[in-house]
Amino acid sequence: MNFDVRHDFTVELVQHAGDDEMICRAARVSTLGAASIDSEESAGLIRFLMKNRHGSPFEHGFMTFRIQAPIFVWREYMRHRIGFSYNEESGRYKELEGVVYIPPRRRNLIQTGKPGAYEFVPGSDIQYDYMLASQLDVHRVAWQSYRNQLDAGIAKEVARMILPVSTYSTAYVSLNPRSMMNFLSLRVQSDKSLFPSKPMFEINEVANLMEATFKELFKITAAAFEDANRVAP
Amino acid sequence: MNFDVRHDFTVELVQHAGDDEMICRAARVSTLGAASIDSEESAGLIRFLMKNRHGSPFEHGFMTFRIQAPIFVWREYMRHRIGFSYNEESGRYKELEGVVYIPPRRRNLIQTGKPGAYEFVPGSDIQYDYMLASQLDVHRVAWQSYRNQLDAGIAKEVARMILPVSTYSTAYVSLNPRSMMNFLSLRVQSDKSLFPSKPMFEINEVANLMEATFKELFKITAAAFEDANRVAP
Amino acid sequence: MNFDVRHDFTVELVQHAGDDEMICRAARVSTLGAASIDSEESAGLIRFLMKNRHGSPFEHGFMTFRIQAPIFVWREYMRHRIGFSYNEESGRYKELEGVVYIPPRRRNLIQTGKPGAYEFVPGSDIQYDYMLASQLDVHRVAWQSYRNQLDAGIAKEVARMILPVSTYSTAYVSLNPRSMMNFLSLRVQSDKSLFPSKPMFEINEVANLMEATFKELFKITAAAFEDANRVAP
Amino acid sequence: MNFDVRHDFTVELVQHAGDDEMICRAARVSTLGAASIDSEESAGLIRFLMKNRHGSPFEHGFMTFRIQAPIFVWREYMRHRIGFSYNEESGRYKELEGVVYIPPRRRNLIQTGKPGAYEFVPGSDIQYDYMLASQLDVHRVAWQSYRNQLDAGIAKEVARMILPVSTYSTAYVSLNPRSMMNFLSLRVQSDKSLFPSKPMFEINEVANLMEATFKELFKITAAAFEDANRVAP
Repeated sequence: MNFDVRHDFTVELVQHAGDDEMICRAARVSTLGAASIDSEESAGLIRFLMKNRHGSPFEHGFMTFRIQAPIFVWREYMRHRIGFSYNEESGRYKELEGVVYIPPRRRNLIQTGKPGAYEFVPGSDIQYDYMLASQLDVHRVAWQSYRNQLDAGIAKEVARMILPVSTYSTAYVSLNPRSMMNFLSLRVQSDKSLFPSKPMFEINEVANLMEATFKELFKITAAAFEDANRVAP
Repeated sequence: MNFDVRHDFTVELVQHAGDDEMICRAARVSTLGAASIDSEESAGLIRFLMKNRHGSPFEHGFMTFRIQAPIFVWREYMRHRIGFSYNEESGRYKELEGVVYIPPRRRNLIQTGKPGAYEFVPGSDIQYDYMLASQLDVHRVAWQSYRNQLDAGIAKEVARMILPVSTYSTAYVSLNPRSMMNFLSLRVQSDKSLFPSKPMFEINEVANLMEATFKELFKITAAAFEDANRVAP
Repeated sequence: MNFDVRHDFTVELVQHAGDDEMICRAARVSTLGAASIDSEESAGLIRFLMKNRHGSPFEHGFMTFRIQAPIFVWREYMRHRIGFSYNEESGRYKELEGVVYIPPRRRNLIQTGKPGAYEFVPGSDIQYDYMLASQLDVHRVAWQSYRNQLDAGIAKEVARMILPVSTYSTAYVSLNPRSMMNFLSLRVQSDKSLFPSKPMFEINEVANLMEATFKELFKITAAAFEDANRVAP
Repeated sequence: MNFDVRHDFTVELVQHAGDDEMICRAARVSTLGAASIDSEESAGLIRFLMKNRHGSPFEHGFMTFRIQAPIFVWREYMRHRIGFSYNEESGRYKELEGVVYIPPRRRNLIQTGKPGAYEFVPGSDIQYDYMLASQLDVHRVAWQSYRNQLDAGIAKEVARMILPVSTYSTAYVSLNPRSMMNFLSLRVQSDKSLFPSKPMFEINEVANLMEATFKELFKITAAAFEDANRVAP
């Protein structure tokens, strides 16, 4: 085939600043040289801030990720405006590589229920195979067209108009713990959520990868978020 | 064909509030019953605010548009976060209609120059015809696949992954005069611009339609923006 | 006395755009000419959006207020950044009028309980009278000093440094229904709130006045917010 | 005296992430393991981004400061909403220490010129001494009143209403290089500025301290900002 197929997502931590203790320092507006707060007291303060929705101390941390996801995921992702910074590669200036997303076999394929109360359930093997063949077929034609147009001298930004929204794109994403929790509250499906959300499978997968890193970097904060039923402060 | 082709964009004003005089009132923090400012004085004040980059009074106006544009335009558009609100139709819940964008013959097709200094120039008729045929070909396969997948019971949000980024989508966009001018400064190519921008043809077309409405609603402000060499305050 | 005393706040609606039906149109991304939705259906849609925290349709409305409040209230108010626009009069360029806030007799004067769990209860008449006399005394000296400094040729921006934070200031505030509900969820104390907040008395008073106007302009939305236990979408 | 007097400001760097090279990586959306870019190439890329107002790569850095400044400075400071996070100590829950700002002798005291074209020039020694005596006098009465009210059992949030806006307050401020440059373009008076600004002396002093740290952390970016006549990208 004239393109590569992936069924997964990449979320790499590039840099970060801050930790649970820094959030406590910001909440107390304490001096740099202040005696370190013991971790029991920190945990109590963070739970208090979370429960009472004092969100601003959670803005004094920082994470930058490099993420690879299909365009239709980026379209949802970039609706998150507050406390998010983005830099995405551009198909205007660079020939795109030809990596496309096809749902993995474990993804639910069938939508049931009524508007406002949809559920997703597994499809049959035949349905999966049909979807797979049909999508690969379009990609084959699309990538052939893209490269033919480039060969004919057509500008990249014109030729790429024909590429499907399942084409992968890469971006740098920077955010803070507060914007992270807002994102997770909307993009992760969890039984613990006081306000249950039904995110699309693919953005939920990306969010899961982000949450795993968040738990490592801001352990107490991430636990307090879970204890607060995933209500973002 | 199993889809409709368009070469243009739709920008409809849905509602608005405020005018040049309201911007002056906000700048003066004047009372509701205050004697109306004469228009000469208003124009002087607005030019002063623009030139000295006092931007906040220009936030006290409001415009809502209903816009139809291809997905690849929305991807650029939604990078504008500050002072912008969006509501876009979703391909997760609704079968998409099959309207696609093909560049009009007057659009420049060829990219020349080096990275960081690209220019766009017209292509030959043969190049245009080749691009047209090649893109239509992909759309035919893609829309056939989309509908076949739906017929096979595949969820809309899965089937649509195969649709090209030139598929039209509709959204409500609300913004204020300040965010409008920021948008125009970046998305309209103009000889008057102190900081010249080289926007993509398609978003420039959308921006032109928005600017026409802006000039009607906020006449003095739009003129002062032009006089200030299109530097957003 | 060389200054005026107030115990209250002014919140005037200056302009607005949008209503409950526009929020529904934005949610449906429906055309301008679309058949009007009946109000029962609108109410159902708005309750659905609110309950499922689909916040973006609530951004397609607009309200501008002219508000008079003491500086210490503005200091809390302006922490609301998202979806808020401000234009406040400046003490750098204009001689301030000398209007000051003294808490009314009905305001609770005494703070009890522990950090993180404070309550406010009424003070005695003697305590109120003492507070009143003591604060008036400072204002008398401060406003005398302010005007003496101006008479001595000192710049307004220097002379005003001595003015108390209970000095009134006036600002234009523009916001949308979504940012309004976020503000109300944090700045109004209500038994209905799922996440109870304990705002300062004075900002709660301002918020009450804003909520009264909000209920008139966006009747269904305001009711759905209340029904959803004042959780902002 | 029953309070301390300061004539200066404190700006301490608390934490940071990112550097000039990270901005280049974000602009190129390059991989973590990518070969390090040589510094000459980095400088060229950063100058290109700055000149062409490609602002988003400059958001992938982070600085947190702990700042001590008078309330009237915070009032201007917190008008910066985009890309800024704040946590300020609260006079509602904590007895304030009694540290007040009096302008230093080198500060210009006299405002001349017309509205829209003010200049500040030095005052006489007598004027300075008069301002000093007058302001100290008010502080003496105000801080006596504050503590008397507290002794009488009045809540902190009520008693503090009488404190002048020159009272110091401390806050954590987090921002990124892009929001830093926007702040500096408006709050530093410089002959190099294409759009000259006339900030208040006190916020200019704070901004100078911030810029000194910014130059150390993002050396190439800060130099490119200066070369671009202090126009924020």
